[in-house]
Amino acid sequence: MVSLQGRIDSLSDGLLENEEEKIVTEGHVLASHDLCDSCDSTSSAYRRRAASIEWPPRKQPRTVETVEVGCLNVISGKYESLDYDVPDSDLLLDEERNSGLKYETKKNISRWIVFMFIGVFTAGIGILLDVGIDQLSEIKYGTLKSYVDRCVEDNCLYIPYLMWVAFNVAFVLVSSLLVTYVEPIAAGSGIPQVKCYLNGVKIPRVVRIKTLLVKVVGVICSVVGGLAVGKEGPMIHSGSVVAAGISQGKSTTLGKDFKILDFFREDHEKRDFVSGGAAAGVAAAFGAPVGGVLFSLEEGTSFWNQSLTWRVFLCAMICTFTLNGILSLYHGFTGQQWYAGLLSFGKFPEVSYFWYELPIYMMMGLIGGLLGSLFNYINYHLTVFRMRYINKRLWMKVVEALLVAATTATVGFSMIYFLNDCRPLGQDPTKFPTQVFCGDGEYNALGALWFQTPETSVRSLFHDPAGSHKVSSLSLFFILYYLLSVWTYGLSVSAGIFIPSLLTGAAWGRLTGMGLMWLFPDMDWVDLRKYALVGAAAQLGGVVRMTISLTVILIEATGNIAFGLPLMLTLICAKWMGDFFNEGIYDIHIMLSGVPLLPWEPPPLSHDVYASEIMSHPVVVLRAVERVARIVQILSAETHNGFPVVDVGYEHQDEGIACGKLRGLILRHQLIVLLQNKIFNEFSDLWNPKTNDITLKMFRDEYPRYKHIQDISLSPGEMRCTIDLRPFMNSSPYVVIHSMTLPRVFRIFRALGLRHLPVVDDTNQVVGMVTRKDLVRYRVNHHNGKMTREELKISEKI
Amino acid sequence: MVSLQGRIDSLSDGLLENEEEKIVTEGHVLASHDLCDSCDSTSSAYRRRAASIEWPPRKQPRTVETVEVGCLNVISGKYESLDYDVPDSDLLLDEERNSGLKYETKKNISRWIVFMFIGVFTAGIGILLDVGIDQLSEIKYGTLKSYVDRCVEDNCLYIPYLMWVAFNVAFVLVSSLLVTYVEPIAAGSGIPQVKCYLNGVKIPRVVRIKTLLVKVVGVICSVVGGLAVGKEGPMIHSGSVVAAGISQGKSTTLGKDFKILDFFREDHEKRDFVSGGAAAGVAAAFGAPVGGVLFSLEEGTSFWNQSLTWRVFLCAMICTFTLNGILSLYHGFTGQQWYAGLLSFGKFPEVSYFWYELPIYMMMGLIGGLLGSLFNYINYHLTVFRMRYINKRLWMKVVEALLVAATTATVGFSMIYFLNDCRPLGQDPTKFPTQVFCGDGEYNALGALWFQTPETSVRSLFHDPAGSHKVSSLSLFFILYYLLSVWTYGLSVSAGIFIPSLLTGAAWGRLTGMGLMWLFPDMDWVDLRKYALVGAAAQLGGVVRMTISLTVILIEATGNIAFGLPLMLTLICAKWMGDFFNEGIYDIHIMLSGVPLLPWEPPPLSHDVYASEIMSHPVVVLRAVERVARIVQILSAETHNGFPVVDVGYEHQDEGIACGKLRGLILRHQLIVLLQNKIFNEFSDLWNPKTNDITLKMFRDEYPRYKHIQDISLSPGEMRCTIDLRPFMNSSPYVVIHSMTLPRVFRIFRALGLRHLPVVDDTNQVVGMVTRKDLVRYRVNHHNGKMTREELKISEKI
Repeated sequence: MVSLQGRIDSLSDGLLENEEEKIVTEGHVLASHDLCDSCDSTSSAYRRRAASIEWPPRKQPRTVETVEVGCLNVISGKYESLDYDVPDSDLLLDEERNSGLKYETKKNISRWIVFMFIGVFTAGIGILLDVGIDQLSEIKYGTLKSYVDRCVEDNCLYIPYLMWVAFNVAFVLVSSLLVTYVEPIAAGSGIPQVKCYLNGVKIPRVVRIKTLLVKVVGVICSVVGGLAVGKEGPMIHSGSVVAAGISQGKSTTLGKDFKILDFFREDHEKRDFVSGGAAAGVAAAFGAPVGGVLFSLEEGTSFWNQSLTWRVFLCAMICTFTLNGILSLYHGFTGQQWYAGLLSFGKFPEVSYFWYELPIYMMMGLIGGLLGSLFNYINYHLTVFRMRYINKRLWMKVVEALLVAATTATVGFSMIYFLNDCRPLGQDPTKFPTQVFCGDGEYNALGALWFQTPETSVRSLFHDPAGSHKVSSLSLFFILYYLLSVWTYGLSVSAGIFIPSLLTGAAWGRLTGMGLMWLFPDMDWVDLRKYALVGAAAQLGGVVRMTISLTVILIEATGNIAFGLPLMLTLICAKWMGDFFNEGIYDIHIMLSGVPLLPWEPPPLSHDVYASEIMSHPVVVLRAVERVARIVQILSAETHNGFPVVDVGYEHQDEGIACGKLRGLILRHQLIVLLQNKIFNEFSDLWNPKTNDITLKMFRDEYPRYKHIQDISLSPGEMRCTIDLRPFMNSSPYVVIHSMTLPRVFRIFRALGLRHLPVVDDTNQVVGMVTRKDLVRYRVNHHNGKMTREELKISEKI
Repeated sequence: MVSLQGRIDSLSDGLLENEEEKIVTEGHVLASHDLCDSCDSTSSAYRRRAASIEWPPRKQPRTVETVEVGCLNVISGKYESLDYDVPDSDLLLDEERNSGLKYETKKNISRWIVFMFIGVFTAGIGILLDVGIDQLSEIKYGTLKSYVDRCVEDNCLYIPYLMWVAFNVAFVLVSSLLVTYVEPIAAGSGIPQVKCYLNGVKIPRVVRIKTLLVKVVGVICSVVGGLAVGKEGPMIHSGSVVAAGISQGKSTTLGKDFKILDFFREDHEKRDFVSGGAAAGVAAAFGAPVGGVLFSLEEGTSFWNQSLTWRVFLCAMICTFTLNGILSLYHGFTGQQWYAGLLSFGKFPEVSYFWYELPIYMMMGLIGGLLGSLFNYINYHLTVFRMRYINKRLWMKVVEALLVAATTATVGFSMIYFLNDCRPLGQDPTKFPTQVFCGDGEYNALGALWFQTPETSVRSLFHDPAGSHKVSSLSLFFILYYLLSVWTYGLSVSAGIFIPSLLTGAAWGRLTGMGLMWLFPDMDWVDLRKYALVGAAAQLGGVVRMTISLTVILIEATGNIAFGLPLMLTLICAKWMGDFFNEGIYDIHIMLSGVPLLPWEPPPLSHDVYASEIMSHPVVVLRAVERVARIVQILSAETHNGFPVVDVGYEHQDEGIACGKLRGLILRHQLIVLLQNKIFNEFSDLWNPKTNDITLKMFRDEYPRYKHIQDISLSPGEMRCTIDLRPFMNSSPYVVIHSMTLPRVFRIFRALGLRHLPVVDDTNQVVGMVTRKDLVRYRVNHHNGKMTREELKISEKI
């Protein structure tokens, strides 16, 4: 034992003085697989199937390759997972023993209160967005309308056109500058990022207050800037940030620690709150609390937790309630008329259907799926183009956004200018009816669509009485808006995809309804409202491919439960058709950014893949009582975040190579905190469980941004100390045996929300480690009924 | 090796000839813990915390004790778990390799189709119940009314009274006889049974067609028999049976095997279908498809499965659609008026609320919680009384049911006779207005409540215009009906608790509204409808303690999304208040029947309990190639259902005692099928993977009722054969190490839906087994802030 220890010591001491490349190579000397190769594992050839298991050729833990950007088959190496599994250390046991039931009760009550606050504050953000957009766009379109009205007669229409362009460019410039230079993670709708976070991937800066500020200001400017975007996605992202902010009782952006709620400073608790925030965001965006709960279940949950769901539901309900209450005051609704007046998509009270309409809806679903997958296809190639040529220079991103803003204004103005779709003013469904070249007492129907925010246009297309639009102008509007929204999504601005999809969908849905009216002029079941709604659902479903949550969101947003089945059938058809061609837009963007998103199910037909084939190995292991020098060396040289703790086999000594039985698992950040606080054995008076000097609080205080190993300075004397990792490590990690099949490994990993899953052989010695990336990199492709299994590359570059 | 084998052989041979007690004692000789005691496990004292782990005193696998019936702290030993975890055997791998993607696709499409059929058939059952009850009660109350009308003048009111009693007794007699003598599992609402099934407990006969028939006829008779019961719970149970029946393609009751869908003949698949059936049942009962999905999630899910949820939703939607379509035809609604006319609780279109009403609702929630827990308290003691004194003789159960039926008629008649609550006929909210002693042009308001099914009465109390009832008569009705429904629940008839709870709740809710009207006569926000609704929600929430699903069910059943928050706050308060005193009525009945229901969370503060303390040990293990004689002996002597398969350590031979490393897990039913088909090594020409003689089909054909070991006859020659268990066993079972803490053991067990969880030491040798009962038997009680951990007894008697 002594000689072994000595050998390891000299090794690690030597390593610290070497150049970096050497360190990496040498770092593997102590890795467990090396250690164990020579040990007896005769019994691994025991089982019938095991006979076919060969240790795969040794691979580096990360395959660092130069891969072209914009490839769907690369996983980025830079994303880490959340620690959803609470490490089961002696410290936790101590805390539990000392604090007892009262502490649990306090934590529980705090949870409820925090969820209520999340609901209220998310509603606040929602109100800010709603009122901000409302006020600014009133100014914008009011001014434009007055100029148009004046200039039609004075023949100076170029003035309102240039003003329109100027308005758009100015607002979009603000949004784009903020997003490009201040906080790039605030770009887009934020739903992909929230989805990844809920899936368990740590997306840097995604739930910071700075992100929230950029998002809120950015989305107001994008919408007012006339882009084909909506505020719904950003609202969901905002809810998540609010949740993370409130639950932690401190903010990195503001540099303030309120010293409250420190017991929630764990990935595990934080993620639960974020799922509540996302639900509240949906509730605020669509007035859909149940839809919100289902959204956060659909996007995030692996393990159904009844009490969490119930709290999330309360949070979403309170958010809806607050939002409705205050917006009702703002809009001047009184008393009991509240809710109904604020339905996002207007009231659909008497809309019902006959059973023979169902095939029409299903057909529309299929069309939506086609249009949606085409949308995704174009946007995918556009995004790849952007990644290759535009994203390299930040200013080009801003210029592209401004170009889109100017184009949008130009398209809108041209349509109003060239198409004379005049309607009598009596029906007046718009706030700013522009006459343009129409006769007196008439207004331009296209002007009505363009002279308001896209969200209001959706409502107009849903509810405008029959005969409000010409087929030709609506068709042109559909095509141009479709193209504009494809171009817009992915710009460097804060912007959601829900509303533009709904708007294009409502346009072609309404066209379908008009066609049916023309075919069956005497039938009273042809109701333009419901066809516009079904079209909108089909288009949105074809683009985003959400299932149950989208159905319920649409049911709640229209306030019509009876119309659930048609919406559902439409969405099923849209999803099936779309999935035939490609994935949903969010998933495409997630894949492009290389985030290792864990799917719902293991790849099909993978029962012949074993843990030993997918695991990363060799693994860098630590001994239970480890030298500080070696810890520092390993943390500097390796990028791993979890290290199995082993005993160095006392019996199997063979020329200094020892087998390590798995004793626990310790995380990088725990090691960092230990080093930082100098919890060394040689200073053992520090460690006195009775005085509770060392508690979980020490770790929570540093959460979530731990120091880097380079920032910790240790004297040479301290480097010679040792640390007893046993009280801090997770002493009963979940493990799997090397011969377990991939589907079972996947299931345990997914269901328990793991980050590190050590793989052991049948003598309980660590032979590998399965992480999220190892599971994600197996993908199955189907082509012409044949199936090929594909292994994705992992790159540090994207 | 040879000597060891020989020793074991002689042991097992000898055992077969001994008397039974001997067998049990000797049976443990080969149990792994005995085997391993002498092996080196020096390293188990390694970890700091491990120092405190002592092997607990050896206990029998099942503590068989004579326990008094009606005790909440006993777990019945007779319930087994479902095999939700698919055994990962070589056969599965073969099947996957041979059948490929096409087979998967076929399975998948079949799944969708089966779910659609479940929706349609459950709707069929719903229609049968609805129409049956409607028609029969029309006859009953029509006849009674005509006699009452005639007899008020002729002074022969004893005739309608006796007729009423006779009607009730006759119908209830049918229901009670069926339930008592034909299928006792059909008693009550069926929700506890479905809940247990979805939780993973095998409740015998719960999803058989015979049960369905008894349930349907029984509930029609109970409702028409005038009992204080509803058809909603039974409908949910019926949906589950329908699902199980359709998905299996065969029926034991009918003795027919349609030879289709045999790939769904696994506990795993069947449970998924049953969860869809339960959701469809809710959808049929309340017109609440989303509520149905949430119900089956809340009651059954541990792992959120997106595609399953989506299918369940479709199933529930189709069920609602079919039910509404056909019932609309029956009730004469046409076209687009469909859905709205069929809302279970009538339309609440304009009901909204002011924020300052919320405290009133919360107060009502608290009252509901109090009344509900009182209900549960009385019913609990009544049930214990029944278990002790009535259930012993079957005829007494029937007599009690008849007694309740007669009492109900008497109470109703007395109220009509003695209380003259006369109202003008103009408002006529009832189908059979009885005049009794009222003046001409008036009707008896109490007669109106009693002369219809409870479900219709709920609707009346919700929607009757203000002034339809006197305070005194409504109060008396509330008290009497409350007592009647307490007495009725638990009778040996098919009957649900939803409607009587809603009815009592609606009564006191309406009273509250009337009180508020009297307090604030000029306020227009006091709307009796909403107070009746809130009262009903509070009472029901207080009794059943469901959370999110109940909220959504009520939202959908009233068709009013805006009223979600008040309902939710009411239900939260009712649940909190009720939980302070006791558990929900379903949980009380489940506990009384001793079913080991797995809770959502591990017991709090249990990080100091280790797997080694809760596991059952010693474990009976099998060797990979095992002698038939020993298998037969073990299956006869033991009640276990899963056996770890070990290799008998080739190296550690020490006087015939060998250590077994875990190699797999095999289930009792697999062994039975192997024995039955004589898959013995000595007949090894049978086993030829290429010809696929032995496939999973062999096991599926026997599902779900396998032979008993006594029914398999083997010749002495066959007894000397051996079986190679390796191709059949689950070769990578999930395992935990003996030092894992209870919360972690619980989480892996719950999240993965396990049935057997082998516990190994750190050399991978089996030392124990954790099953559902081991996890359930730890319960934590809170009293005055102190916490005591309690270990429940396991009894074979109840």
